Amino acid sequence: MAERGRGWARAVRGLLLDVSGVLYDSGADGGVPIAGSVEAVRRIKASGLKLQLCTNETQATRESFVRKLRALGFDIAVAQVTAPAPAACHLLRERGLRPHLLVHDDLVPEFAEIDKTNPNCVVLGDAAENFTYANLNEAFRLLIGMEKPVLISLGKGRYYKETDGLKLDVGAYMKALEYACDIQAEVVGKPSKRFFESALAELGVPPEQAIMIGDDIVNDVGGAQQCGMRALQVRTGKFRVVSLPLSLPPSSYQN
Amino acid sequence: MAERGRGWARAVRGLLLDVSGVLYDSGADGGVPIAGSVEAVRRIKASGLKLQLCTNETQATRESFVRKLRALGFDIAVAQVTAPAPAACHLLRERGLRPHLLVHDDLVPEFAEIDKTNPNCVVLGDAAENFTYANLNEAFRLLIGMEKPVLISLGKGRYYKETDGLKLDVGAYMKALEYACDIQAEVVGKPSKRFFESALAELGVPPEQAIMIGDDIVNDVGGAQQCGMRALQVRTGKFRVVSLPLSLPPSSYQN
Repeated sequence: MAERGRGWARAVRGLLLDVSGVLYDSGADGGVPIAGSVEAVRRIKASGLKLQLCTNETQATRESFVRKLRALGFDIAVAQVTAPAPAACHLLRERGLRPHLLVHDDLVPEFAEIDKTNPNCVVLGDAAENFTYANLNEAFRLLIGMEKPVLISLGKGRYYKETDGLKLDVGAYMKALEYACDIQAEVVGKPSKRFFESALAELGVPPEQAIMIGDDIVNDVGGAQQCGMRALQVRTGKFRVVSLPLSLPPSSYQN
Repeated sequence: MAERGRGWARAVRGLLLDVSGVLYDSGADGGVPIAGSVEAVRRIKASGLKLQLCTNETQATRESFVRKLRALGFDIAVAQVTAPAPAACHLLRERGLRPHLLVHDDLVPEFAEIDKTNPNCVVLGDAAENFTYANLNEAFRLLIGMEKPVLISLGKGRYYKETDGLKLDVGAYMKALEYACDIQAEVVGKPSKRFFESALAELGVPPEQAIMIGDDIVNDVGGAQQCGMRALQVRTGKFRVVSLPLSLPPSSYQN
């Protein structure tokens, strides 16, 4: 077992890290680092392992997200963050789509270069306080009025943990619009295979030599495994013991 | 065909009518009657047919709903309305459930006699402006914190038409909470079989002698048919031609 453990570790050249629930718990006050995580990032970098953050964060531009992480003590550069909004812009350009945005105010600058006149799709992010009755009705009416409604969702998470408790994530609102319009959203961000592939390209390491570390069993662990990577689930963030089957010891769930 | 038509009509002793989209289009201003509907109700009553309104309306108590309809010219009594909130109260009492309410302010009095301390379920109605980010997070946290989350939804409609346009209905928000908590809601109201059965009991007519008339192909027409009734879909309210399959002439969809 020890021999196998060393072999496993030797083959690893890069790490993809989820951020919220792994490095820090987000919150209105900017959030707080999870104990040991600043030091862990420092040691990963010192070890020579490649490091890329792979996040579904859509409440801020990558630039301001990185400023926040640096203020919390994490030594991270903008190029080390793979996030859904830039991936969505790529897709919008590729397909000539003009979005109506239902996103957080602080994410809007990511779409500055995108034509948003006469929308032919809706882009949904973690809009938080912008998830009002009026805004959801507006997005719904645009979609139901389209001959072929296109809903692009920046992630499909169920919920996440902030410093003041659990919050509904974009996936819940995506389901509301999917049901109302009888359509299926296209998900940009984890667990999309294409998204993990771009994160790996930015990491510069093939899937079999990379490990994804996250707190979400579906979007982090499942998505990475679909891509041929190994994955670890941390027990911080939204992790809840109640979600473990009773028939297996908790240690079985660490990878 | 003429003979068969007369036979069909002779067997009908009672009508269940949906209200929003059939008798009137609701709206912030109290709504407006649909052309011909006040006269139609008058003629139904004059014909000797029994009449019961079967609505998923949950933005008001039955009393104030009937006041509104009477002000619009409909000669209807409170006992002629079957609505989800009284049915939900029956179910809550039967099962000893104490609800947290996420409903329209004007519906709250329907639950006046129900114990709401230390909630062990969530009741979801068409809360309209009360569908805020904060209120949805609160309902979600209560559910996810329960050992066995119980979500009772007053209907599961996708959307409805108001005088100023289409609005997301309770079903969309039900789907958001179902997804976030990985649960299935219990639906009280149309298309639940139990709900149609209580409407028929109040009508005093067996299903084979009753017809349901509504604008919703799933909740009105489908639900009634599941109960052994015949059903007609009107072309007012949320009815949209686009939802008809192209291979059949539109007249095929009137029953």
